[in-house]
Amino acid sequence: MSDSGGTAAYVSSGEFKRDSTYIPDRITRDGRTPEHGPVDGELWPVEAGRYRLVAAKACPWATRAIIVRQLLGLEDVISLGTPGPTHDERSWTFDLDPGGVDPVLGIERLQQAYLARFPDYSRGITVPAIVDVPTGRVVTNDFPWITHDFFFEWREHHRADAPDLWPADLRDEMEEVMQRVYTEVNNGVYRAGFAGSQEAYDAAYDRLWVALDWLEERLSTRRYLMGDAITEADVRLWTTLARFDAVYHGHFKCNRQKLTEMPNLWGYARELYAIPAFGDNTDFDQIKTHYYVVHRDLNPTQVVPQGPDPAVWLEPHGRG
Amino acid sequence: MSDSGGTAAYVSSGEFKRDSTYIPDRITRDGRTPEHGPVDGELWPVEAGRYRLVAAKACPWATRAIIVRQLLGLEDVISLGTPGPTHDERSWTFDLDPGGVDPVLGIERLQQAYLARFPDYSRGITVPAIVDVPTGRVVTNDFPWITHDFFFEWREHHRADAPDLWPADLRDEMEEVMQRVYTEVNNGVYRAGFAGSQEAYDAAYDRLWVALDWLEERLSTRRYLMGDAITEADVRLWTTLARFDAVYHGHFKCNRQKLTEMPNLWGYARELYAIPAFGDNTDFDQIKTHYYVVHRDLNPTQVVPQGPDPAVWLEPHGRG
Repeated sequence: MSDSGGTAAYVSSGEFKRDSTYIPDRITRDGRTPEHGPVDGELWPVEAGRYRLVAAKACPWATRAIIVRQLLGLEDVISLGTPGPTHDERSWTFDLDPGGVDPVLGIERLQQAYLARFPDYSRGITVPAIVDVPTGRVVTNDFPWITHDFFFEWREHHRADAPDLWPADLRDEMEEVMQRVYTEVNNGVYRAGFAGSQEAYDAAYDRLWVALDWLEERLSTRRYLMGDAITEADVRLWTTLARFDAVYHGHFKCNRQKLTEMPNLWGYARELYAIPAFGDNTDFDQIKTHYYVVHRDLNPTQVVPQGPDPAVWLEPHGRG
Repeated sequence: MSDSGGTAAYVSSGEFKRDSTYIPDRITRDGRTPEHGPVDGELWPVEAGRYRLVAAKACPWATRAIIVRQLLGLEDVISLGTPGPTHDERSWTFDLDPGGVDPVLGIERLQQAYLARFPDYSRGITVPAIVDVPTGRVVTNDFPWITHDFFFEWREHHRADAPDLWPADLRDEMEEVMQRVYTEVNNGVYRAGFAGSQEAYDAAYDRLWVALDWLEERLSTRRYLMGDAITEADVRLWTTLARFDAVYHGHFKCNRQKLTEMPNLWGYARELYAIPAFGDNTDFDQIKTHYYVVHRDLNPTQVVPQGPDPAVWLEPHGRG
């Protein structure tokens, strides 16, 4: 996602509200009606090599999709384009690529893929986005359904030992947990950081720590959020935990404690970090650069902190 | 001190430089030539009840003087006026006092005591300041000499069991340690926080952590900075440590680690906090409010973080 360009808004109380209207198209097996979820847009058929996931490693919402793609072994069937950590009001750019151009899509700005499909597109140009490579047109940026459909609709392309990220017997509980993680944690840190008044911040801070205390307690008796195995719920929590001490603690003022000071969450986070799909796609430099440079309204100097020392992530987690 | 109103300046490289020109008057026994240090201004005589120390608990430079006054038992001979944590360009105000007026000096703004003496005073209106109560005129704001002279010149008024804050046999080493603490730590955190460029910040950050690593090592074999007993050097280091996790870690981006993550410094800091002159004069709310509200250029929303949890200060320090 982007934190500017139309995805955020303040209400009069100073409380941050996320614009959660996305392009609702979905990619499904044979373009059929999906197993789960809404059909509010067009349906596109699963097809190896046809689509490109555009996802910045700086962005937590985008990184979800990068991690799930790798956990399921979809790297050879869905290619990955990675915009750099900063962007202006006109969108994410491919400034890390040679010549500043995505080598597959041939564009400099993700905005071009949005405008190729919707010439008058006026909402935020967000990541993750899936682009139809033959036409260069964006298909969807509806991030919770992107990872969902990687699992349910792309099954025939998963690697043989892909994890069951959505165990059927846990689905109802998982939905509840993920909803709470989304509103209270993933979005909760933004609610604190973008609060436009002391009152809005105080309320957001209290609400965030109620949720983190709940998670700390939950992980005292469970190895992963839903039990003994990794699920989509872990991916969704992870991207906030990975950014917590690097960005949210200081920049968003979520500073009752560091992640490193919450023993269960910290051990859990280190265990996830040791898994390549999680650790290899966690780039602390890009993460810090994104938040501290893009949010000039919070950090006018745009100076990026050197800390915290990332060496702690490699300490033994002692779980399992 | 104040961080606005003429006490800070940037050089072209973006590096923060402190304006260190103060009113050089000193208060000495019988107004005689002092035992140590320069005589660049007028000499005023020590006199019980004549002077008022004006010192905001938010300000580290001012809090030094509050602590030394209490350690030496000077509370009954030098009164204390305490401006609130925030101030505007025109100076610190007595907004915590009834009617917003200092009950002894009868003024609303510390600036009035400066202008009473120097009608055209154009430098920063800083704390700590000592004011001559009969005339309402500022005597000095030269903070290192204020605490020095509390010890050497006010000796006959010390409580009987006052600590020897300046042991003669350690004086040379103490001066070296205090100079390094001043330039590298007390001022080092400001150099990082007020850096006007990434390059200036990076240099300041590296320089600060060299000094903190030196102190962490030094305190592995010494209970206090100079050995087995508290000295002026400890007071000077303390006021930065007390603010470290509350302000400097996040607001000034001094975030390699928290103070709580440096075992020797953290144990040492908790031992000092348990001493009334240190702990009773440490007001984390005032400290946070000062920095986060006054520095609008660093924190445009002026939202004050709720964290960190101060309960950790009461954990056993395990030293001694």
